[in-house]
Amino acid sequence: MINAVVMPNPGAPLETRAFDRPALEPGAILLRTLGSEVCGTDGHLWKGQLAGVPYPIIPGHVSVGEIAAFGPGEPPRDVDGAPLRVGQTVTFLDVYGTCGRCWYCTVGKASTRCPYRKVYGVTMSADDGLYGGWAEYIHLRPGVHVVPLPDGFAWRAFLAGGCGMPTALHAVSLGEIAFGDTVLVQGAGPVGLCAAVLAQLRGAGQVIVVGGPDVRLAAARRFGADLVLDIATLAESERLQAVREVTGGRGADVTIEATGVPSAVPEGMRLTRDAGRYVVVGQYTDAGTATFNPHLDLNKKHLDVRGCWGSDAGHVYRSVRVMARYAAQFPWTELISREYGLDEAQRALADVAAQRVVKALIVPARDGTAPAPSAA
Amino acid sequence: MINAVVMPNPGAPLETRAFDRPALEPGAILLRTLGSEVCGTDGHLWKGQLAGVPYPIIPGHVSVGEIAAFGPGEPPRDVDGAPLRVGQTVTFLDVYGTCGRCWYCTVGKASTRCPYRKVYGVTMSADDGLYGGWAEYIHLRPGVHVVPLPDGFAWRAFLAGGCGMPTALHAVSLGEIAFGDTVLVQGAGPVGLCAAVLAQLRGAGQVIVVGGPDVRLAAARRFGADLVLDIATLAESERLQAVREVTGGRGADVTIEATGVPSAVPEGMRLTRDAGRYVVVGQYTDAGTATFNPHLDLNKKHLDVRGCWGSDAGHVYRSVRVMARYAAQFPWTELISREYGLDEAQRALADVAAQRVVKALIVPARDGTAPAPSAA
Amino acid sequence: MINAVVMPNPGAPLETRAFDRPALEPGAILLRTLGSEVCGTDGHLWKGQLAGVPYPIIPGHVSVGEIAAFGPGEPPRDVDGAPLRVGQTVTFLDVYGTCGRCWYCTVGKASTRCPYRKVYGVTMSADDGLYGGWAEYIHLRPGVHVVPLPDGFAWRAFLAGGCGMPTALHAVSLGEIAFGDTVLVQGAGPVGLCAAVLAQLRGAGQVIVVGGPDVRLAAARRFGADLVLDIATLAESERLQAVREVTGGRGADVTIEATGVPSAVPEGMRLTRDAGRYVVVGQYTDAGTATFNPHLDLNKKHLDVRGCWGSDAGHVYRSVRVMARYAAQFPWTELISREYGLDEAQRALADVAAQRVVKALIVPARDGTAPAPSAA
Amino acid sequence: MINAVVMPNPGAPLETRAFDRPALEPGAILLRTLGSEVCGTDGHLWKGQLAGVPYPIIPGHVSVGEIAAFGPGEPPRDVDGAPLRVGQTVTFLDVYGTCGRCWYCTVGKASTRCPYRKVYGVTMSADDGLYGGWAEYIHLRPGVHVVPLPDGFAWRAFLAGGCGMPTALHAVSLGEIAFGDTVLVQGAGPVGLCAAVLAQLRGAGQVIVVGGPDVRLAAARRFGADLVLDIATLAESERLQAVREVTGGRGADVTIEATGVPSAVPEGMRLTRDAGRYVVVGQYTDAGTATFNPHLDLNKKHLDVRGCWGSDAGHVYRSVRVMARYAAQFPWTELISREYGLDEAQRALADVAAQRVVKALIVPARDGTAPAPSAA
Repeated sequence: MINAVVMPNPGAPLETRAFDRPALEPGAILLRTLGSEVCGTDGHLWKGQLAGVPYPIIPGHVSVGEIAAFGPGEPPRDVDGAPLRVGQTVTFLDVYGTCGRCWYCTVGKASTRCPYRKVYGVTMSADDGLYGGWAEYIHLRPGVHVVPLPDGFAWRAFLAGGCGMPTALHAVSLGEIAFGDTVLVQGAGPVGLCAAVLAQLRGAGQVIVVGGPDVRLAAARRFGADLVLDIATLAESERLQAVREVTGGRGADVTIEATGVPSAVPEGMRLTRDAGRYVVVGQYTDAGTATFNPHLDLNKKHLDVRGCWGSDAGHVYRSVRVMARYAAQFPWTELISREYGLDEAQRALADVAAQRVVKALIVPARDGTAPAPSAA
Repeated sequence: MINAVVMPNPGAPLETRAFDRPALEPGAILLRTLGSEVCGTDGHLWKGQLAGVPYPIIPGHVSVGEIAAFGPGEPPRDVDGAPLRVGQTVTFLDVYGTCGRCWYCTVGKASTRCPYRKVYGVTMSADDGLYGGWAEYIHLRPGVHVVPLPDGFAWRAFLAGGCGMPTALHAVSLGEIAFGDTVLVQGAGPVGLCAAVLAQLRGAGQVIVVGGPDVRLAAARRFGADLVLDIATLAESERLQAVREVTGGRGADVTIEATGVPSAVPEGMRLTRDAGRYVVVGQYTDAGTATFNPHLDLNKKHLDVRGCWGSDAGHVYRSVRVMARYAAQFPWTELISREYGLDEAQRALADVAAQRVVKALIVPARDGTAPAPSAA
Repeated sequence: MINAVVMPNPGAPLETRAFDRPALEPGAILLRTLGSEVCGTDGHLWKGQLAGVPYPIIPGHVSVGEIAAFGPGEPPRDVDGAPLRVGQTVTFLDVYGTCGRCWYCTVGKASTRCPYRKVYGVTMSADDGLYGGWAEYIHLRPGVHVVPLPDGFAWRAFLAGGCGMPTALHAVSLGEIAFGDTVLVQGAGPVGLCAAVLAQLRGAGQVIVVGGPDVRLAAARRFGADLVLDIATLAESERLQAVREVTGGRGADVTIEATGVPSAVPEGMRLTRDAGRYVVVGQYTDAGTATFNPHLDLNKKHLDVRGCWGSDAGHVYRSVRVMARYAAQFPWTELISREYGLDEAQRALADVAAQRVVKALIVPARDGTAPAPSAA
Repeated sequence: MINAVVMPNPGAPLETRAFDRPALEPGAILLRTLGSEVCGTDGHLWKGQLAGVPYPIIPGHVSVGEIAAFGPGEPPRDVDGAPLRVGQTVTFLDVYGTCGRCWYCTVGKASTRCPYRKVYGVTMSADDGLYGGWAEYIHLRPGVHVVPLPDGFAWRAFLAGGCGMPTALHAVSLGEIAFGDTVLVQGAGPVGLCAAVLAQLRGAGQVIVVGGPDVRLAAARRFGADLVLDIATLAESERLQAVREVTGGRGADVTIEATGVPSAVPEGMRLTRDAGRYVVVGQYTDAGTATFNPHLDLNKKHLDVRGCWGSDAGHVYRSVRVMARYAAQFPWTELISREYGLDEAQRALADVAAQRVVKALIVPARDGTAPAPSAA
């Protein structure tokens, strides 16, 4: 039997349930979970803030595991086209089922808006199988995009970025940072911290992080932020003034929003210079409205504002490559504040919600190696 | 003496004043005005809605004239590099003094945000000279960007677009329309109508215009709009439904805002499809705030929103070329509802404010050829 | 039985063979062919100039047909997501099997370089089924991208563009034409003519076509080219001079190569202005090498040269929308010089090779409606 | 008197000449030279390989100096808009006189192709003044774009990049490197080494340098290249194989050419993957032709090839910011192999030509502080 954490319903206590070993169809993979992240989305799921979630679910959308078994037939291939091998350490794109045939996939070239996509740990039900990462094993269905971790790149290092890294990589790419630009990041959670690092890997001239609390701001500094502004001690007008002081009065060239707070959006427009770019990636749930001045904040500013939704296989593939290549420069694992066993998942959720940790991981084998799954 | 319309102060009646013929410095041009447009900005100027205007001014920022004289020395050159000739019919970029040396000009590559730019008819004072188009002659200072009208292209045809054409050309270019896209234009004034035409000259698959009143919507239809939605008879929800019906439920691929009304901006975000582009070009004065939902309207939509401010010499040059090339297809002069002499300028302002006309021109020589300016 | 033209081997005479009505798998479509084009590729196929062709094949890659039957289960959907209906007139992307999983599909975002793609009429064998358009019926396998023709848009009009239209649409899109640009097209075959039309639908300021022979140049003029240069009467240096004369000495802003002749490529680099863009789309077979000067033709010119390979579903979808929207302006069917029955296919091939025709179609029902396919 | 190195004519020995202290016009700056680079262009100048050079010239186009004096009137401003101060350490864009009015400046937005631009040390004559960096003082004319070096950023560190840094920054920007891309650099001279560093500051997944000789390849390794291929020991086919081995058989995602050798261009096309980008920046003089296959190397590859010419003020400004921000990570000054006094300029030229040094500087005050220039 395989143990997994189940979220039965919004607000209901998490449970650990035992599942049968799944029958693997051709092209499927059984992954022994090494670790799975706890992210802000998991908190939103528990509070019932996302639409279309087929509770009960097994949370955990970004995970790393070791390939335990394949379905019958040829082994599936990784994103690079190489055949996978049992024993390999891999991650995978949590989005499954992007159709490749709908208007968004073919004409709009915006596959993150494909209506057929499902997400491991979010929109796939525990009634249907081991489709989340807070479990000893994960069932990867045929067609899931698998990315091996390179030799010498620790799985914990990758999970230190978690879903924040491909999310930030997508946002930072949309930001089109030019060499020497001042990049401002709103929010110091995992997405914001990853964005602050990635800005340096685009040759930013300076990186400013606006956020809190202390534990996160300390991480921002350790990971290279040139200036950190604490929202607990600085009013909005003081933050604007501080940013203008270090940008010749202009504001940031590129701003990345990663807060989840609607009022951050008009503030971000004002923190950005005229003719700059502003990427909004932190508004993943409906937290209400915001008010802005279209003349001052948008039209006269000649501002470019880009909403950024979701990730694709390319973002995960590129995240792995970037994190591995610059691992000596950025000590990723320091972002992990704490690891939790399956039986501690409720506490992990609480710690993340209270922002007591920077990054939290669920590590199923924390108290010993997970047992080999017995045949059903 | 040279007659010119002067706007002494916001709200004060327009006057016709006589000016001496200006002394021309090397590189300067004296232009005999053939026509100058009346645009929404002129109304804003009269209502005192723009900051930094050095009243008294001679209104009229986009104009066409015949070259009457040059300052001493070599004749200045047009944007193509060819020497200008007395007698040529030309237009010019109303923006003067873009520095080419500031941060926005050199690093930011956003010359429309250069702090040194001045605008004929808007931010240049009548106390300093003939720096507006509602005058028998205009004094082009050295360095003004001059664009000749091609042989066979009537000056009235160019002025039928007026400042709306380079403004729309900038906005439509930012919209990055792809072949076959559905393009929605909010607003049926000169900018909106020009945008609706230019969308067809980007190969749009269908063009929708949302606006009013009837006289403008009729023009929209005559100039090729496939669907026209009247804001006087359709509620916002009905407009949204109508747009979705003709776009497979998705909304417009690209939307161009040209209304001046803040609430049009959140509506435009919703009228645009997920992962579409929305260009905001109509918010030229501060008309207040608007409220939107960052999650639904921006982040989850993966929407790209682009503020668009000002025009440069390239926009004017390209406008002339496009209007001349496609003059057989689009009967530009039909956009001109009425022409006014210098002494009728006040009435022209009122007609434009009341939206009784599509495009109004000031034609100084309306009652005969303007007299040759006598020496001072 | 269903009649189809078969190309048994390079150089061998075409044959008409009778095929059984295919068994339709779920998601498959049987299309009654209304028409299929004869294009340059068919000539290359007959001369054996393409690698990897599984002879025997049924030629004909771009076709229009009427839906005759579906495989069992739900009807497949079109690119817009709407369910298809028996009796609908549709075209389809000739490329089948793009995987959506390989590196090029997921990371490189260059699906036209997906190694798994096959092409109807080119790389699918007649031994396997009715996989080409020169046949009374075509078997569309599950997953083929189907695009209905809009009501009122004649199927002949669409085929007048044929594969040239999505190919040109891809190339012209890559050319990033700005309003008012001078666009030069090398080659006056179907791709070149389509490019010359599409340039006008990007607001080009002038369109120059360099090519031959007379029948094609006449078509270029009829479809709006402002200047036509005949390679039979003008030497390369004269062509360069003629282009410079109408471009202020600079050369074309954007050049589209559609010739198939290697030496056209360095010439095209020289015909394009400094800092312009040059799209090479006509070199579809290996016709040898070309020599250029990297300093003069590329580096000092600050030239952008873009190779353009293949089309995807978006290109076909957009082609249909554009051709239908602007059908009143461009009399597409005039491009069709002649139609041929299945039994005249050899002659069609010869006429195309000799450039005696602009566009040639195979129309299976030319001598009467195709019989309903009898059950096997 | 002010001493300066003069190159009287191609091939003629360099001389040291004494110049009067220049009269400074309003807006001009007298710069006391701290250092000036010796670059490949200086060798080309001495060999007479550049057209339009008004010998005699004072070589040295990229330089750093201390502001010694201003012309009358207000002090000029730096690129950021701040007033300059006597005693500040600054560099400047070597390109002077970009007009801001011609077609390339206004419409083409390609100011590096402005026909009016002149270059310090290259196309400005010693007969006209102190317009080159191999001199105790440099005369900056009004309008020269000046960029101060930030506090704590050593001038030698900036000159270690020299003109190679803005050149590479332009090229790498055109390369549009995505996170995790494999970037290949052809050539290990100053431009190539800077490109290899900048690729890492775009988040490249791996950086490959192909070049020689040993002294340069050692520098490439020290500055982070993941793989170095020596053209002295590996044949072209071996280089291709080596690149394919580390790129899943595909080739580099982005290649930057910085060699000056024409045959490197077709090789670079083949070293780049299908649908990749290839930037050609090293072909600064006419060194002959190259042969390629338009079908295989360009069209079927769907390759994007971009010529890259010149730098502008933004490139210099961004270079300064990037080099200063990442100075701890990249020990720039290690690139400087040797410094030479004015009297050693001939030897410096020889050492650069023989590739005995990575970067060579002319340091006028090498044997003591330069004397204050006496009044004329």
